Amino acid sequence: MGYNLVYKILKNHLVEGELKALEPIGVRIDQTLTQDSTGTMAYLQLEAMGIERVKTKRSVAFVDHNMLQQGFENADDHKFIQTVASKYGVYFSKPGNGICHQVFLERFSHPGETLIGSDSHTPTAGGVGMLAFGAGGLDVAIAMAGGAYYINTPKVCKVNLTGKLTHMVTGKDIVLEVLRRLTVKGGVSRVFEYSGEGLKCLSVPQRATITNMGAELGATTSIFPSDEKTLEYFRAQGRENEFIELKADKDATYDEEINIDLNSLQPLVAKPHSPDNVEEVSKVGKIKVDQVAIGSCTNSSYEDLMKVAKILKGKKVHRDVSLVISPGSRQVVEMLARNGALADIISSGARILENGCGPCIGMGQAPGTNGVSLRTFNRNFYGRSGCLTAQVYLVSPETAAVSAINGYLSDPREFDGDISIDFPEKFIIDDSMIIDPSEDGKDVEVVRGPNIKPFPINKELNDIVEGKVLLKVSDNITTDHIMPSNSKLLPYRSNIPYLAEYCFNTVDKDFPKRAKEYNGGFIVGGNNYGQGSSREHAALAPLYLGIKGVIAKSFARIHKANLINNGIIPMIFENPEDYDKIRDLAEITINDLLNSLNNNNLKLDVKNNEGESFSINVRVDLTSKEIAILKAGGRLNYIR
Amino acid sequence: MGYNLVYKILKNHLVEGELKALEPIGVRIDQTLTQDSTGTMAYLQLEAMGIERVKTKRSVAFVDHNMLQQGFENADDHKFIQTVASKYGVYFSKPGNGICHQVFLERFSHPGETLIGSDSHTPTAGGVGMLAFGAGGLDVAIAMAGGAYYINTPKVCKVNLTGKLTHMVTGKDIVLEVLRRLTVKGGVSRVFEYSGEGLKCLSVPQRATITNMGAELGATTSIFPSDEKTLEYFRAQGRENEFIELKADKDATYDEEINIDLNSLQPLVAKPHSPDNVEEVSKVGKIKVDQVAIGSCTNSSYEDLMKVAKILKGKKVHRDVSLVISPGSRQVVEMLARNGALADIISSGARILENGCGPCIGMGQAPGTNGVSLRTFNRNFYGRSGCLTAQVYLVSPETAAVSAINGYLSDPREFDGDISIDFPEKFIIDDSMIIDPSEDGKDVEVVRGPNIKPFPINKELNDIVEGKVLLKVSDNITTDHIMPSNSKLLPYRSNIPYLAEYCFNTVDKDFPKRAKEYNGGFIVGGNNYGQGSSREHAALAPLYLGIKGVIAKSFARIHKANLINNGIIPMIFENPEDYDKIRDLAEITINDLLNSLNNNNLKLDVKNNEGESFSINVRVDLTSKEIAILKAGGRLNYIR
Repeated sequence: MGYNLVYKILKNHLVEGELKALEPIGVRIDQTLTQDSTGTMAYLQLEAMGIERVKTKRSVAFVDHNMLQQGFENADDHKFIQTVASKYGVYFSKPGNGICHQVFLERFSHPGETLIGSDSHTPTAGGVGMLAFGAGGLDVAIAMAGGAYYINTPKVCKVNLTGKLTHMVTGKDIVLEVLRRLTVKGGVSRVFEYSGEGLKCLSVPQRATITNMGAELGATTSIFPSDEKTLEYFRAQGRENEFIELKADKDATYDEEINIDLNSLQPLVAKPHSPDNVEEVSKVGKIKVDQVAIGSCTNSSYEDLMKVAKILKGKKVHRDVSLVISPGSRQVVEMLARNGALADIISSGARILENGCGPCIGMGQAPGTNGVSLRTFNRNFYGRSGCLTAQVYLVSPETAAVSAINGYLSDPREFDGDISIDFPEKFIIDDSMIIDPSEDGKDVEVVRGPNIKPFPINKELNDIVEGKVLLKVSDNITTDHIMPSNSKLLPYRSNIPYLAEYCFNTVDKDFPKRAKEYNGGFIVGGNNYGQGSSREHAALAPLYLGIKGVIAKSFARIHKANLINNGIIPMIFENPEDYDKIRDLAEITINDLLNSLNNNNLKLDVKNNEGESFSINVRVDLTSKEIAILKAGGRLNYIR
Repeated sequence: MGYNLVYKILKNHLVEGELKALEPIGVRIDQTLTQDSTGTMAYLQLEAMGIERVKTKRSVAFVDHNMLQQGFENADDHKFIQTVASKYGVYFSKPGNGICHQVFLERFSHPGETLIGSDSHTPTAGGVGMLAFGAGGLDVAIAMAGGAYYINTPKVCKVNLTGKLTHMVTGKDIVLEVLRRLTVKGGVSRVFEYSGEGLKCLSVPQRATITNMGAELGATTSIFPSDEKTLEYFRAQGRENEFIELKADKDATYDEEINIDLNSLQPLVAKPHSPDNVEEVSKVGKIKVDQVAIGSCTNSSYEDLMKVAKILKGKKVHRDVSLVISPGSRQVVEMLARNGALADIISSGARILENGCGPCIGMGQAPGTNGVSLRTFNRNFYGRSGCLTAQVYLVSPETAAVSAINGYLSDPREFDGDISIDFPEKFIIDDSMIIDPSEDGKDVEVVRGPNIKPFPINKELNDIVEGKVLLKVSDNITTDHIMPSNSKLLPYRSNIPYLAEYCFNTVDKDFPKRAKEYNGGFIVGGNNYGQGSSREHAALAPLYLGIKGVIAKSFARIHKANLINNGIIPMIFENPEDYDKIRDLAEITINDLLNSLNNNNLKLDVKNNEGESFSINVRVDLTSKEIAILKAGGRLNYIR
């Protein structure tokens, strides 16, 4: 029986467990990446481990999130990351060099290797056949220290692409189609492995758009085979020596399979406020738009922006539209500057932002009140744009560019010019903004600004845990709800005490106050609790506020791992209807916790405020290792 | 007896008074400009005047300050300005089109005409022989409504330039030299008229750098003649039909004269924290720099950035330096994108920001803790960079670029390459980001976001005014002290109640609370009180907090006008030593105010907290018109 591509790579990296769907395994990690908004915390945790140099094949620290720099905090964080990276043997990509996933794909990606990154869109590197996972900062720190990455063996879903993309239909539309079919929780416990004749029409950047936004499915990751398109990309990056061919065995088996006929795929749009709220552009109608934003790790490649430039050339952005473009990397923007495309974009009236995450992470370019914004990004969660009344739609770069000219949401197929581009034979290769670490690190002084505060560390679990239900939330709560990530808060990612004051801010402003008043307690959630980003801060801030456990109908993968890593118990309702029985401020007691954890089964005694008392059963779905981590009060305690 | 250039233009525009140094006059205004951070207020005031269309020859509304857009407020303000401009017959320059002064110079400037703008650097247009004044928003609104602009006839200081600039010495160094000699208050009540053979080596952009930064002298404005260099500029802008030659009469007289020998001028630097703290670069030494910022209305022209590109070409920014560049306009950046210079800049590792004010107005790129930042900007006031511990140095673009490569403050003359550029025969001319107003405005609905609040309006003066001294400050207090303008506050420029909470925030955080507690009162200041920007908010926020008067040793011109316009009494110590006698929270009573104002002389009864009582005399130095405005409780009341 043959292997699929995912199991092939896992097999090569297996250090613990057995490759059997949903069984826990430990995976050896070849490379790691961090970005600045999660990276400061990851390196603080790395420092706490007491090693001298990272043990990975290669680790890279990027700065791409906090680049507005409204106060001293960001530049201080950049300096901290630059110096700590140098000391521990990590490459440092300077602010301005580009978005971590774009630059990693260009310069560091490697077919068949494993990568974890402290950013949920790390699966981008799956576009070249790398097995790439988003993870919490602590998991990344542990991988840098040589530790394995622990996951449950995923189910593998084959996505069979037939036919060929038609005029103005793109990789973005493929992943939007998958989201439409499977929803934001449809990918949980799964890896999506793309295959089929349709691969032939997808360049690496298009593939990377698809694996990138696989994160929105809640997937463990997504991957493409490494084939002649991959070779073309590596050759153009001057890295053909790092190319290897990789594909599934002919007789490979899969747990699931879906088929997408590219011939009949239409331009799609994800409507407010969820990436799976997908419809055909032609059916949504000509909504007047105020802003169009092109960029993000999803859609900011050379290919994407060249096509945008071809659409904009000789045209003008509509007078009532603000078109903002954030290129993915310095390589991309230098290519465009050298070949004249950037001048065409500028001439159209677009506003060129820095190479970085920019508005996708809420760093600027918030729409106005009730503003309609078309974005080529990956998430349109409520409030993420920086404006609570904004209506954010996710589209392809082609749809975005055509709409920017028209002033309303437009089917890109109405543009009948030719926007095909020749894939460059050679990208401009210049790694001068990637700083090599110091030879042995001993001479490097780590510079620590005053906003970089110690992070909270949990204590060993008690056998009896009690507390009140401090917050009850509905389905699909995102990490943006738990720990908002707007431009006012993102600069404080190395200051948990400050951030904690804004925990659950868009849901209930009083939560931090209440948590302190009652000395911590529990959160009750619905399905897919913690979807979205990999930010460990969505566990660290609750930890700081005394949260002992979260009881939900189901959890998003990375957030669940972050809870465990920080000693917060993730509990799943045995009977989902019990969700309705628990009231705000109910008093919960868990007796005999340590024993019950071993059985993966807890009994919760609940006393509602009105006096009503009852018991409910919850599962914890944890490996024995995870149970041990929880008992120790988190992973740092566990490994010490 | 012949006329100097200043008096020639004033004579052509005189509607009231007599051209005699320091005598009050009314001047007819041909053109106005606003930017967004002062513009929202100016247009709210224009609306309050009840006119239908502006009466100027041309008025232009720019958006260049609030472009980070962290919340809905900025996009709302942009939309308000766009719609209100359209309604009243004002041209609207979209965000991304560039900095108001750079774009105005390129596309709207006109030798011999008058301009007022709600930005202190409006004198930039003096580079082409325009008489251009920075003013408060209300003065600009009145000019748009057809009213005259009232100033005291300035003294005219001839700046005689001899010789020729040497290698790597620039217009920036000329104005730094003037600042070194005359200090930030040396220009009060003066216009600087540049002349002499040295003009021949100065292009219009270089001249505009000089007139721009004349604002830092406290000057009424600065001006150059309109000559063959001006013609060259207008021709390249496709506007030779708007060119006229203009120069002083041969036998013109001046009130003062200074000489600058360009042959011996050296590269200069203004050290922290004042633009007049000037020294030769070679004497300051090789200070390690963390950040270099090139741009701002002072130094972001095509010529400036082409020279920067030539210095950076083939070189790399130092690994420990963040080099950020904000081009002055879309014209500039499109020129650089078309001719390859932008690619050279990008290749060096510079970070390209939007075309706008950017870090110069504290909108992003704050240095880190204790960070050293070299900037080509016009102000290095304490805290303006967004970081209170930063050390900001002001330099020429040449000095900035050479230092960015070296990693330390460098004498630019160590770069021995040729950076001379051919002045372009034709700039790229494309006004598509400048939106024409609606034909008659009747169909335009003005869109007003929820952050746009009514502004405070004063009441008629009482004959007895009393109150406590709520704050006593030292010399050279800037409008950045009075109403800080960092990236957290600038988005609130249309919301005075919110802004007022931060009034004098960097001086004394408790001031707003104290002002409210005591129901308003007085401020005591030193020399040159209110220097810096034209922001009316430095009067509106104190008005909102109940400030009735300011007693200082002297006032900066625009701020004094803003106080009068808002009915706050600007008083000058008859005996400067009385400054020392007044204690915090002293109780001040002014009796018989209305009569005393007419005599320009007030007696203040002061009772210090310790019980000590005395009287002091203060002057008000006001024209009869200004007295009438004060009595009415501000200019809006006066004209209604």
